[in-house]
Amino acid sequence: MQDGTRIAILAHEKFPGRAKTAVGLLRYSDHDVVAVLDREIAESDPDARVHDYLPDVQDAPILGRAADAPEFDVLVVGIAPIGGGFDESWRGDVETAIESGADVWAGLHYFLAEDERIAGMAEEHGVDVWDVRRPPEDLTVAEGTAGDLDATVVLTVGSDCSTGKMTTTMELYEEARDRGWDAGFVPTGQTGAMIAGEGIVIDRAPADFAAGATEGMVLDAGAENDYVFVEGQGSIVHPAYSAVTCGILHGAMPDAMVLTHEAGREVIHGFESFSLPDPGALVSLYEDLASSVHDASIVGGALNTSALEPANASDAVIEYADAIDAPAADPVRGEVGPLLDAIEEST
Amino acid sequence: MQDGTRIAILAHEKFPGRAKTAVGLLRYSDHDVVAVLDREIAESDPDARVHDYLPDVQDAPILGRAADAPEFDVLVVGIAPIGGGFDESWRGDVETAIESGADVWAGLHYFLAEDERIAGMAEEHGVDVWDVRRPPEDLTVAEGTAGDLDATVVLTVGSDCSTGKMTTTMELYEEARDRGWDAGFVPTGQTGAMIAGEGIVIDRAPADFAAGATEGMVLDAGAENDYVFVEGQGSIVHPAYSAVTCGILHGAMPDAMVLTHEAGREVIHGFESFSLPDPGALVSLYEDLASSVHDASIVGGALNTSALEPANASDAVIEYADAIDAPAADPVRGEVGPLLDAIEEST
Repeated sequence: MQDGTRIAILAHEKFPGRAKTAVGLLRYSDHDVVAVLDREIAESDPDARVHDYLPDVQDAPILGRAADAPEFDVLVVGIAPIGGGFDESWRGDVETAIESGADVWAGLHYFLAEDERIAGMAEEHGVDVWDVRRPPEDLTVAEGTAGDLDATVVLTVGSDCSTGKMTTTMELYEEARDRGWDAGFVPTGQTGAMIAGEGIVIDRAPADFAAGATEGMVLDAGAENDYVFVEGQGSIVHPAYSAVTCGILHGAMPDAMVLTHEAGREVIHGFESFSLPDPGALVSLYEDLASSVHDASIVGGALNTSALEPANASDAVIEYADAIDAPAADPVRGEVGPLLDAIEEST
Repeated sequence: MQDGTRIAILAHEKFPGRAKTAVGLLRYSDHDVVAVLDREIAESDPDARVHDYLPDVQDAPILGRAADAPEFDVLVVGIAPIGGGFDESWRGDVETAIESGADVWAGLHYFLAEDERIAGMAEEHGVDVWDVRRPPEDLTVAEGTAGDLDATVVLTVGSDCSTGKMTTTMELYEEARDRGWDAGFVPTGQTGAMIAGEGIVIDRAPADFAAGATEGMVLDAGAENDYVFVEGQGSIVHPAYSAVTCGILHGAMPDAMVLTHEAGREVIHGFESFSLPDPGALVSLYEDLASSVHDASIVGGALNTSALEPANASDAVIEYADAIDAPAADPVRGEVGPLLDAIEEST
């Protein structure tokens, strides 16, 4: 984790509902957010602030352009359109940032460091462009060694994408630190990497190196901590993304897994002809697959209840715990304490 | 499949034991192999021929350099050192080939098309350099549609790497064609792609696109054939490569799987601290994981008995069939007919 890095987050027309990276940074990073850029909000309300939309995260002014922001060290592109392209209307903000001496972090499929104009300006002004999704050149195959760590490795897995793996991982990590545990966090996606200030986005790594890239990060974190919380991706039953899930599962060699799920979801999001297995079957599938390389159990479940009325959330959590035969929690409306207890007991 | 393409295969110091791609092309491709280049063999025996080493494949002279070979259309780099680098001692053969107007195919991690000198010569002489491992630029995520094909999709899976997935796939495909079935072959590795003359090497695709790249090839083959034989990779219990296996499994959405295994192998090759599950557990794992997106059964097994004395091979096959509770065959010493019967019965 870094501290004190001053960041401005570009989220034009998408804040907060469609700006997952921006919201993740506001909620979990130790970076100092000096501004969120959303020209649509800023135009309609020049005094808008993050707390008008999200009262429980770090506050910051919402401004129309980078030129209006207080001094910052990094401009983060905190949104990604479908397809991951660069929107030309963002160029002014990126150039303003570079001219002011700020680095640029982006999670786009379009790599800003390969944009001739941006690359040239970055060189001229001596700033770094970090394309978070770009795999490092030195990736290699896994050696199968993460299971030898003394540290307890905890991986969040899921029934589907967008079930709360990143959120659950961060809540577990923060609660562990609050308890005084010696804990590390391993990001595997773009938001997690920007929160950590480092990391490899596994979905863009060559499939042969997905496990190896995960393993490398887990070994580093495990050398320095007693507990390592690894952000999972996708789902082992996802028709498009399961390769990423499997690479992380076998590369990380967790000792314990937490199964995330969204209450009420019965089919794969965006692939609605694919039914989700019932939670008990999913527990078996993850445990059997993980244990084929390193013994691991689902020790708890995290239920995303955002689609439910508040009054129904706790019943849903109880029902979910019953279905997976393990303690469960709602990491947003509730507390992850019971999951940490389960992790502690399992090791 | 192409026909009549004249190829020379570079396999210096590695033929035949450590030249898997060279041997695969000699055994299964419809290309006309005009020469194998192995300067070590050629020096010790100027009259050496492939049949001196491998009597049951296409014959060709073994020569010391490309300049000595009869006219050819393609030079294939049919070996890859550990690490996948380009050996500078091969440069003379590659340049001779390009100057003679031949294309170059290579399965190295080092991309020849990015070698300035080779790229320049290729442009000058109007020849193509196909780096087989290089993922196409237009890869994308899977849409989850391979299961909708009318064609029967058969995937070879394995207990480990190098258990005979490519060989089994080719033997099934050839036997299917001999029976008059309308059959296609989908390569997923470098040797398979060179045999087919096209294809995507899935292990180098970004993990997010592993299923999508497989799906695209299966859809193409399935549109034109009643049966599609898909070459699998790695193993779902492999600590380094399972992401590739999983992406192919869910991208191809097979109707039937054939489980390959090497008799006597009890641990993962090169990762000897990892035990292989017993074959029955492996059947369950593959079936459960596959069926989470599309119903599929292991309908047969292929046993690589090369480590056994010939007298013990058939008992081992019977024992293997018993362990997986399905018909089994030895695709090299025996016939894959019983496996095709099982595939036909299953659909």
